[in-house]
Amino acid sequence: MALLVVGSVAYDGIETPHGRVDRVLGGAGSYIALAASPFAEVRLVAVVGDDFDDDDEAVLRRRNVDCEGLVRASGKTFYWKGVYNRRMNERRTLATELNVFADFRPRLPESYRDTSHILLGNIQPDLQSLVLDQTPIRRYVAGDTMNYWIERTPDELAATMRRWNTILVNDEEARQLTGEDNLRHAGRAIRRMGPETVVIKRGEHGATLYRTDECFMAPAYPLDKLADPTGAGDAFAGGFMGYLASCGFRETGSAAGADLRRAMIYGSVMGSFCCERFGVDGLKDLRAEQIEERFEEFRAMTAF
Amino acid sequence: MALLVVGSVAYDGIETPHGRVDRVLGGAGSYIALAASPFAEVRLVAVVGDDFDDDDEAVLRRRNVDCEGLVRASGKTFYWKGVYNRRMNERRTLATELNVFADFRPRLPESYRDTSHILLGNIQPDLQSLVLDQTPIRRYVAGDTMNYWIERTPDELAATMRRWNTILVNDEEARQLTGEDNLRHAGRAIRRMGPETVVIKRGEHGATLYRTDECFMAPAYPLDKLADPTGAGDAFAGGFMGYLASCGFRETGSAAGADLRRAMIYGSVMGSFCCERFGVDGLKDLRAEQIEERFEEFRAMTAF
Repeated sequence: MALLVVGSVAYDGIETPHGRVDRVLGGAGSYIALAASPFAEVRLVAVVGDDFDDDDEAVLRRRNVDCEGLVRASGKTFYWKGVYNRRMNERRTLATELNVFADFRPRLPESYRDTSHILLGNIQPDLQSLVLDQTPIRRYVAGDTMNYWIERTPDELAATMRRWNTILVNDEEARQLTGEDNLRHAGRAIRRMGPETVVIKRGEHGATLYRTDECFMAPAYPLDKLADPTGAGDAFAGGFMGYLASCGFRETGSAAGADLRRAMIYGSVMGSFCCERFGVDGLKDLRAEQIEERFEEFRAMTAF
Repeated sequence: MALLVVGSVAYDGIETPHGRVDRVLGGAGSYIALAASPFAEVRLVAVVGDDFDDDDEAVLRRRNVDCEGLVRASGKTFYWKGVYNRRMNERRTLATELNVFADFRPRLPESYRDTSHILLGNIQPDLQSLVLDQTPIRRYVAGDTMNYWIERTPDELAATMRRWNTILVNDEEARQLTGEDNLRHAGRAIRRMGPETVVIKRGEHGATLYRTDECFMAPAYPLDKLADPTGAGDAFAGGFMGYLASCGFRETGSAAGADLRRAMIYGSVMGSFCCERFGVDGLKDLRAEQIEERFEEFRAMTAF
């Protein structure tokens, strides 16, 4: 099974107490694609500028990410720069230059249109809908969004969300989307907006899944070294949907709950590896054994 | 097996978005004793004033809390008043009147001296030591502390901590105690100070146990209604140590890790019940079946 990923591919400047890098491969689409790649064939839809380095595309290709949908437009690649506080639980954005991303209109290559699983990264809601318009009806869709779209394009967001099976948002977004402080209530309220499964990412505090009457809580891995939290939420989403794509998940049948729980843990595993190194460095060379070993560590840390 | 609890018994004024109460039974000692009482025989050491109501003592006695060590001194009972923000993750203290608690010198009744398990609530570190001086050498000791003592009496705190088997602190206290931002590092650093088991309470985000190379993460229960978070950390400590006392825990043998894990979950269970109602109301009438049912809910929410 394959996973279609739509999201930004960017150059990032990142400063944390452990170091500083600039113009490194980043963007939600890159993190998602790399985190999903150990599980499923990934098909990427994104736009970069003519300054985008072949070596950076090679990072994706080496992980078997299909880059037919990675369009090169005239202009510069999306650039983001941010700096983290000492504890790395807050960050300040120093620069956001949309560049070619400002005119991004996702167009799926013919070969992508039959993809069984789709992960809509955090982009303009009507572009998320546009991607779904280009794919057949029977597919499994997860989507992400952010405060910017919740505030500015609530109707377009509501329209695309009605077509999602799963939503992945962080706790603040869940509260903003519903006006509910209590995350359990927020989970229920979001389910009434369309997605049958709601995953609320809580950063260093783990992630929670709400679905029918079910609630599943995945802890975050207690990292020995947190180098750079950038992209951890996207890596979670990539691991989560990559795993679901690998088992042909359809939200039916008695195994669905168990599949989703394992997907939550694989998401947490990929988020943890992401944080251990700068940018995408924690994801780009991961071996399957490392992933399985950490998955078992999660089991050991939660079983009672 | 029995649990000796030393801590404040107080009158509290509490305001949350869900209501307001004043002069209700509170204090760490009350919360701990009530939360531990379903598991073990609890022996309480505390001081109250001559304004302390017999009905409030009856709340403790009805749960079989031994109140021989609850001294009535001339003066007023410790009074605390606080108000919570809308999300109830922060609170502002409006009043702290130590009253008779200012002169508290714990003296153990003869009948308490053979208690197998001891939980030292958050009081002056040299008073915590004084309690240990009055008990035989072979007992299992857990202690709590807070920023006030970490800042003002670090030497006395270090001295009493060396005699503890387990420490229960929140994340900020763990960071302050060690100067480590990373909680895994903080856990290791605290273990070098004496306690072989470190429990870091993270409020609405759950609790983590560090012990040798082991790490166990208990989630917080996703409450449908959070009425009042006061005492939740103490209720956690009470459930944790009450359960350990009930199984005669000694930190030896192959079952120790499994016992501690279950204790973490029982602690989380009691913390969750505590938050559902104001003051000690969520704890004072709990039935064993309710506790077991929620314990199984925790299993369902974490198994994969």
